[in-house]
Amino acid sequence: MDSVRVRQVAVILCGCGVYDGSEIHESSAVFVHLSRDGAQYVAFAPNIDQMHVVDHVKGQPSEEKRNVLTESARIARGNVKDLKDLKVSQFDAIIIPGGFGVAKNLSTWATQGKDCSVIKPIEDAIRGFHDAKKPIGLCCISPVLAAKILPGCEVTVGSDKECDKWPYAGTAGAIEQLGCKHVNKQVHEVHIDVKNKLVTTCAFMSNSPLHEIFDGIGEMVKAVLKLS
Amino acid sequence: MDSVRVRQVAVILCGCGVYDGSEIHESSAVFVHLSRDGAQYVAFAPNIDQMHVVDHVKGQPSEEKRNVLTESARIARGNVKDLKDLKVSQFDAIIIPGGFGVAKNLSTWATQGKDCSVIKPIEDAIRGFHDAKKPIGLCCISPVLAAKILPGCEVTVGSDKECDKWPYAGTAGAIEQLGCKHVNKQVHEVHIDVKNKLVTTCAFMSNSPLHEIFDGIGEMVKAVLKLS
Repeated sequence: MDSVRVRQVAVILCGCGVYDGSEIHESSAVFVHLSRDGAQYVAFAPNIDQMHVVDHVKGQPSEEKRNVLTESARIARGNVKDLKDLKVSQFDAIIIPGGFGVAKNLSTWATQGKDCSVIKPIEDAIRGFHDAKKPIGLCCISPVLAAKILPGCEVTVGSDKECDKWPYAGTAGAIEQLGCKHVNKQVHEVHIDVKNKLVTTCAFMSNSPLHEIFDGIGEMVKAVLKLS
Repeated sequence: MDSVRVRQVAVILCGCGVYDGSEIHESSAVFVHLSRDGAQYVAFAPNIDQMHVVDHVKGQPSEEKRNVLTESARIARGNVKDLKDLKVSQFDAIIIPGGFGVAKNLSTWATQGKDCSVIKPIEDAIRGFHDAKKPIGLCCISPVLAAKILPGCEVTVGSDKECDKWPYAGTAGAIEQLGCKHVNKQVHEVHIDVKNKLVTTCAFMSNSPLHEIFDGIGEMVKAVLKLS
């Protein structure tokens, strides 16, 4: 593949805010690194209701209703397309930042764990990029989407040992139960499943300084572009 | 001042989303750079209704009502305090990222331009840090807050020559009409008003690649910490 050609990357958002949508800092980091590495990107989101709206001060669901596409546009500064219009042939890679929206709006992981379902357009996208041998970048909780759809794949969500630094370490065990391999990695590291062209990094699955999360996502973006 | 002491920085948010709140990427960039530069930060926002809610897909106001503090918590991952509790004595510096929320929720600049009013807790905060000779960092549209409150100060909002790259260049003229000095600067640069300990950078006032905006904000954060 021509190494100077500008890479086109689809970035999937799922709302705006860590507790009910895309994690904002992870999403921004993906865009900053794609920009710095000279790639072009298009944001996509499903045009569906959020599972719920969480008041991020109280940490509790409110009575509001919000649309995933509309809220994702806040991160994308208005430049977001309906996920139903994503065409694998138009992109070199796909990246899905984390946030509870991945486990609430893109799948039912938040309520059903390894027995979750993944919404059809996300399943189609992951299978589509995988079948086309195009790289898939995932961070934070979004590696569970790959674990669910691509049995036998290798991912990291950080550590499998729960402690203050790794409050969600149980996710690693659930991934193993899905028949996948979980690889422990630090926040600044990625795991690359070369066979499946899958690049994962733990991001906010780790309690770490924000710039370390930012840098880990930078490594993920670089590896995705290198595989494309 | 002890150079190894950890700097404490207050970051003021005003919602979540470029068209009715804090610009998300600018806000995230401020936090990433503060983290990398070893500073600690606390996010604050006023506990008031937003001027309005903008559907970021349509670019049009919707009928919804949202609270500035509650929405700011999306960027701050829940860790945001009521602006009324901000005490100048507890911080070494203050930073206000941009976004239309600055011109809609923190002031009436969006509708009244140079004849705008600034909400009392923001006026108090800017005067308080200024009187205490503590640095103030502003980007994008938020330098107009300083121009309104600190007549004679020097700021940049980028360029005063309107073109594709500088769609909001008219802001520079309005700042001059307030009796302040506008200094043209590129997106990766800051202007430092040494006398007023005011550091400004244009950020999204410029149509520039996201990583250049990110880097300009990094220069702003560095200069603010150096002045503290």
